[in-house]
Amino acid sequence: MTNNICKDFKLSQDDWLIEEKKYHPHKQAMYESLFTLGNGYLGMRGAFEENPHGSYRGMYIAGVFDKAESYVREIVKVPGWNDFSVWVNGNKFSIDTCKVISHKRALDMKKGILHRTTIMKNPDGKKLKFESKRMIFAHQVRGALMCVSITPMNFSGEIKVISGLNGDVTNQGYFPEERIKHLNVVSMQRDKESIYLEMETRDDKTKIAIAADTVYMGNNLNIIKVNRVYGEKFAQEMIFKAEKGSQYNFAKWISVFTSREGYERQINSTATDLLRDMMYEGVDYHVKKHVETREKMWQTADVQINGDRRAQKGIRFNIYHLLVIKPHHDPTVSIAAKFLTGEGYKGHVFWDTEIFMLPFYIYNFPEEARNLLMYRYYTMAGALKNSREMGYKGAKYAWESADSGEETTPNYGLRADGSSVKIFTGDEEHHIVSDVAYGVFNYMQATKDTDFLYKYGAEIIFQSARFWLSRVEKRRDRYEIRKVIGPDEFHEHVDNNAFTNYLVMWHLEYALTIYNQMQKNAPEVLKALIKKIALESEEIEKLKVVSKTIFLSYDQKSELIEQFEGYFSLDDFTVSELDSNGLPLWPKGLDLSNLERTQLLKQADVVLLLYLFPDRFSPDLKEKNYNYYEARTMHKSSLSPCIYAITGLDIGDHKRAYDYFIKTSYIDLLDANKNTGDGIHGAATGGAWMTAIHGFAGMRLRRNNLCFDPWLPKKWQEISYTCFWQGSLLQVKLNHKNISLKVIDGKAVNVTVRAKQYKVSSKKITTVKLGPKY
Amino acid sequence: MTNNICKDFKLSQDDWLIEEKKYHPHKQAMYESLFTLGNGYLGMRGAFEENPHGSYRGMYIAGVFDKAESYVREIVKVPGWNDFSVWVNGNKFSIDTCKVISHKRALDMKKGILHRTTIMKNPDGKKLKFESKRMIFAHQVRGALMCVSITPMNFSGEIKVISGLNGDVTNQGYFPEERIKHLNVVSMQRDKESIYLEMETRDDKTKIAIAADTVYMGNNLNIIKVNRVYGEKFAQEMIFKAEKGSQYNFAKWISVFTSREGYERQINSTATDLLRDMMYEGVDYHVKKHVETREKMWQTADVQINGDRRAQKGIRFNIYHLLVIKPHHDPTVSIAAKFLTGEGYKGHVFWDTEIFMLPFYIYNFPEEARNLLMYRYYTMAGALKNSREMGYKGAKYAWESADSGEETTPNYGLRADGSSVKIFTGDEEHHIVSDVAYGVFNYMQATKDTDFLYKYGAEIIFQSARFWLSRVEKRRDRYEIRKVIGPDEFHEHVDNNAFTNYLVMWHLEYALTIYNQMQKNAPEVLKALIKKIALESEEIEKLKVVSKTIFLSYDQKSELIEQFEGYFSLDDFTVSELDSNGLPLWPKGLDLSNLERTQLLKQADVVLLLYLFPDRFSPDLKEKNYNYYEARTMHKSSLSPCIYAITGLDIGDHKRAYDYFIKTSYIDLLDANKNTGDGIHGAATGGAWMTAIHGFAGMRLRRNNLCFDPWLPKKWQEISYTCFWQGSLLQVKLNHKNISLKVIDGKAVNVTVRAKQYKVSSKKITTVKLGPKY
Repeated sequence: MTNNICKDFKLSQDDWLIEEKKYHPHKQAMYESLFTLGNGYLGMRGAFEENPHGSYRGMYIAGVFDKAESYVREIVKVPGWNDFSVWVNGNKFSIDTCKVISHKRALDMKKGILHRTTIMKNPDGKKLKFESKRMIFAHQVRGALMCVSITPMNFSGEIKVISGLNGDVTNQGYFPEERIKHLNVVSMQRDKESIYLEMETRDDKTKIAIAADTVYMGNNLNIIKVNRVYGEKFAQEMIFKAEKGSQYNFAKWISVFTSREGYERQINSTATDLLRDMMYEGVDYHVKKHVETREKMWQTADVQINGDRRAQKGIRFNIYHLLVIKPHHDPTVSIAAKFLTGEGYKGHVFWDTEIFMLPFYIYNFPEEARNLLMYRYYTMAGALKNSREMGYKGAKYAWESADSGEETTPNYGLRADGSSVKIFTGDEEHHIVSDVAYGVFNYMQATKDTDFLYKYGAEIIFQSARFWLSRVEKRRDRYEIRKVIGPDEFHEHVDNNAFTNYLVMWHLEYALTIYNQMQKNAPEVLKALIKKIALESEEIEKLKVVSKTIFLSYDQKSELIEQFEGYFSLDDFTVSELDSNGLPLWPKGLDLSNLERTQLLKQADVVLLLYLFPDRFSPDLKEKNYNYYEARTMHKSSLSPCIYAITGLDIGDHKRAYDYFIKTSYIDLLDANKNTGDGIHGAATGGAWMTAIHGFAGMRLRRNNLCFDPWLPKKWQEISYTCFWQGSLLQVKLNHKNISLKVIDGKAVNVTVRAKQYKVSSKKITTVKLGPKY
Repeated sequence: MTNNICKDFKLSQDDWLIEEKKYHPHKQAMYESLFTLGNGYLGMRGAFEENPHGSYRGMYIAGVFDKAESYVREIVKVPGWNDFSVWVNGNKFSIDTCKVISHKRALDMKKGILHRTTIMKNPDGKKLKFESKRMIFAHQVRGALMCVSITPMNFSGEIKVISGLNGDVTNQGYFPEERIKHLNVVSMQRDKESIYLEMETRDDKTKIAIAADTVYMGNNLNIIKVNRVYGEKFAQEMIFKAEKGSQYNFAKWISVFTSREGYERQINSTATDLLRDMMYEGVDYHVKKHVETREKMWQTADVQINGDRRAQKGIRFNIYHLLVIKPHHDPTVSIAAKFLTGEGYKGHVFWDTEIFMLPFYIYNFPEEARNLLMYRYYTMAGALKNSREMGYKGAKYAWESADSGEETTPNYGLRADGSSVKIFTGDEEHHIVSDVAYGVFNYMQATKDTDFLYKYGAEIIFQSARFWLSRVEKRRDRYEIRKVIGPDEFHEHVDNNAFTNYLVMWHLEYALTIYNQMQKNAPEVLKALIKKIALESEEIEKLKVVSKTIFLSYDQKSELIEQFEGYFSLDDFTVSELDSNGLPLWPKGLDLSNLERTQLLKQADVVLLLYLFPDRFSPDLKEKNYNYYEARTMHKSSLSPCIYAITGLDIGDHKRAYDYFIKTSYIDLLDANKNTGDGIHGAATGGAWMTAIHGFAGMRLRRNNLCFDPWLPKKWQEISYTCFWQGSLLQVKLNHKNISLKVIDGKAVNVTVRAKQYKVSSKKITTVKLGPKY
């Protein structure tokens, strides 16, 4: 791929690249998801410029939701800007209608640039080389750039280039093929050169403004340029006489603003001004800034794995997506289950964020981790409303949350045969409430950010604990939680799900801990908060009682935690065969319509508890439960394998950990679930990082300490990364023999390696020899 | 065509039918215009139900305009409802992709119903008979109905019917292929059965609400019906098992409301309620009502020509379009140059309405004629603004008028080579101001509607006369009007255009006449009006002076009126050859880029004056001017031939009259100008009626009398029609020997036949023998 436009377009080394080496018409949607570019504010799928058949292009803006004819409020596909096509004699050069002579795309994860080179021959025999480099700026969240080079290889003559802003966008509907229109056009303005498209959401009239300009990057070419309107699509059309063998370079600049961020009155001039400024500063300047910003993020975030290129590429791919979704600009948005890479799960935020993604941010970008938690603070009004509407008190966080925090789980879904099925997760999957609390706890341990805790975190904890006080039911001498769905969604309407009940117990204890801590350290702040949320002393008393007497179904003899009351008396099936991908096959003789009558699990449930609270269960209990549930887990969720990997490593079962790690980190790269086209599996990206760091590197939080208890796969010569711990940035390198630690920014910290404490400072590298783990 | 659904679907006799006897893929747009259905409120092009390639479907609502990205405010294409397609195995039966076994459409002009029967075979060999009957209700302007019958002829199996409301509509843009989006979607609601689509215009937020339901009209068929959203398109989908040879009948009901008529708050329930009511009353009831209403209109409007089927069909086609555009519901809208049949001239109202269409309504539907003039009253604010902006006083009616009366003539147009050319008609073609006044005069003569005159007409006349008082320029002892365009648009920026100056003279005289008449008969009304519009006595004095001293360039010796000052010294070319359609060929040696330097005319200019004022010029002068200008007229406007036909008959030149009549009445049926696809030539429809009635039947207004001076083409055995004259409905029958007259409703009236007065009453038929005219 030529880099004659800008030196910063030079491709990084292979282990930073995700490549598409030939054109697969039926894998377009998958590559579009994989090649998503973004910066937390914007996410744009990596669709081909000419919009061939089978493409599902889309750009999304964090926090921009709308309902319209959709069944629930959903992330809005906003006008796209990657539309760029080359026409000769009225015919478009398109990869799906031309003969593809060669084709290659590469996502340079290090630089955050998507490269394409396609040579195609149209039915008239004309050969064209089409090259593009595309980025969504990391240094300027409202800006983006695409450089396109076209070379007529065997012909001269008039070429027309159409470069569009596509306002004619709709979201995928709930029923197959339905299309939801979320945006209405407000204005389309032709400046002398540039174009400006302003649309607004149907429900809230949130304005989306995009200014764009496409310019020829050479001299002495007579180009006729006109800006034309095709309904809601705005196109810049350029016509010029091309000469065989010459390369013609264009730069397409974009600026994006929305009224959601307060740009209401001046949105037009604001967008146009930024566009002009960026164009004035030029391609070289902005590509350099973008690459520098991306590379700086990688300095903190990268996990280097020596000796295993597959693992290296896999972990980087997952970190890449965690990086480009990182919402550093805005504490009122969170990260959706599919990031901003597609419309799967409608852009909704699930527990995936707090349990599976948050750890990456806590240890790499604590400020952004705080932002993610702030989303739960800013959406508390919705959570309070959810409670009220269910007849409860306090904050019931939504199982699926959009922008207001109100419950947005669809009420029904579609079976494969097209019939609809009631969805109960919004009504019953209440552990989300304590998952959020756990997120606060997890963040607090690593950061000691009492400013956050006192101002926001405590309110989240208290209001969500209050929900449980109204939700639990007293039966005899204990408190129960009935009719819930645990993480294992094969079983609905269950009573006393162990995961939920245990987490609630912990949640109420944590609320008390914070209450006591604030009473001691910040009594005035606590007083004000008590007043603000009208917290009664009876509620504090009830926290104590409920947290001590909540029911947990546990079989003393076998040391097995029962997933929920009555689980052990269900039909017992165990997994005995794996498919070619190493995933469980349904046991023989099973009636799939009666799954809820069996002990088979969709995903980690009790085992997830063992992962979240590594100190609270004995190794023996962990092992017994791990073995019992592992044999019954179907891994029908991308959230499952990583938890088994980490818990397995915790109890010394290494045999499946590496497989689980590869499964998790390659779930999208291999399109293992056949739905990567709908978007990246966000929890799996976090899960991959967790498996590497909490699993193999063995870095866990135990008894409030940062502990290392590593175990590396044989071929991993070294794993190295940096992480933040209580304000200090720590460099970690470890191989099969040693672990080396050094503070590279901040104060000295205490860490535990294999149960022994060490003080690590910035002065020297602390190296600890590692004996065999078991 | 089968009529087993409703007996009123029976086709009328052949001379009431316009037929398409086979499928012409490239004539779709033409037939769509010809087959437009309407009721004055709605106009819908006769597009195929399945939307084949090359279709330009569209529905328009009188008075609904918008600008958005268009260069001027234009009529808005609103959501269509004729979308109805049949699918088997995911493939649509469409006339453009199937083999057409047989195809026929017939517009039953008498009943206002469009019939279609198509038998087509798809690529799988499946044969389907598709029949439809479509109407826009005459009795209920907000309602419409389409009955569709489908018969699988050689197969059984699952059939899917998709019946849509197309909100995904855009107008044709100014540049070729540009598309203008005027409507944004407000809401799409699925009722239990029906669907409801509400959109609003971009600029004024005028709401367009359409409720629709498609129902199966038989029993015992298991149909799965779902209502689905595809962006801005709403579709009802019905799936059923069809049996070979069985006919399946569906009725699609529509109700349309807009906030323009005040249905703002309750627009949804209002539209849905009307839909329910109509559906409850049923197909038989509504088709009967519709046909009765249409036929009743024809009783007044029809012109029967015995002995000439071609002329009969031609005149009926033109009257059909005048009938279906008749705005009986609303005095704030007028009739556009292309009616509501297409987007040519952007739905703008020109002088065509007052000069070419109004006579038909004056003599057939005087109330609607009054409505058309009321439009000029309601848009006076715009006309006053136009004057102010040009530095003049009074009311400058717009050359092209939309809904406000403000000037909406585009500032430039496109040449054939794509380059743009400044359009001056909006700036200079000022005779429109007096054309409106002439319309008032014409209406008043036939109706004596002093209620209209005193309340509205006088204000129009005074305000528009006032414009001229500020527009004329005094030079030496005379008043001149410089830098205008007359009806002949080949010559721009001319001084003292005879047509304009003469009409202004008459206009000012007429203003004085009305002033004097009101002073005598209604002094209080006049006083109030003077106060309202602040009319000064100096202005009345100036009316007298200007009307007496306005300049008219007239050559005493030749008795030729000079079209404008200096016209006679231009290069003189005359027409010597006609093309195969009988239209003039450009004279040899002519430089087309220098047309303005020649005496060649686009259309009647001086001759139009002779037509408008038949009493004011001597037969000798008329003949000389007719002969002079006729030889120089290129007839590049559909407004031209009819004026020459009538004036020719007036002076005894019969030889071209019939040809001109056929040319005028068949201009669209033969697509003579190759642009019928853009819409019907409205002025020509009025011109055809004028030629038949004012020309052949010789019914003219002379010296305030209704005069008959007929001359019939040889093969016309009889022409008969009815007309209103001063409140009485007159039956007129005439052949080559006699004219028979009778009042069929109202008081006795005096008429003049061949210069002799007769009293015509309702008691007996008055028959007058006709000698040879000349």
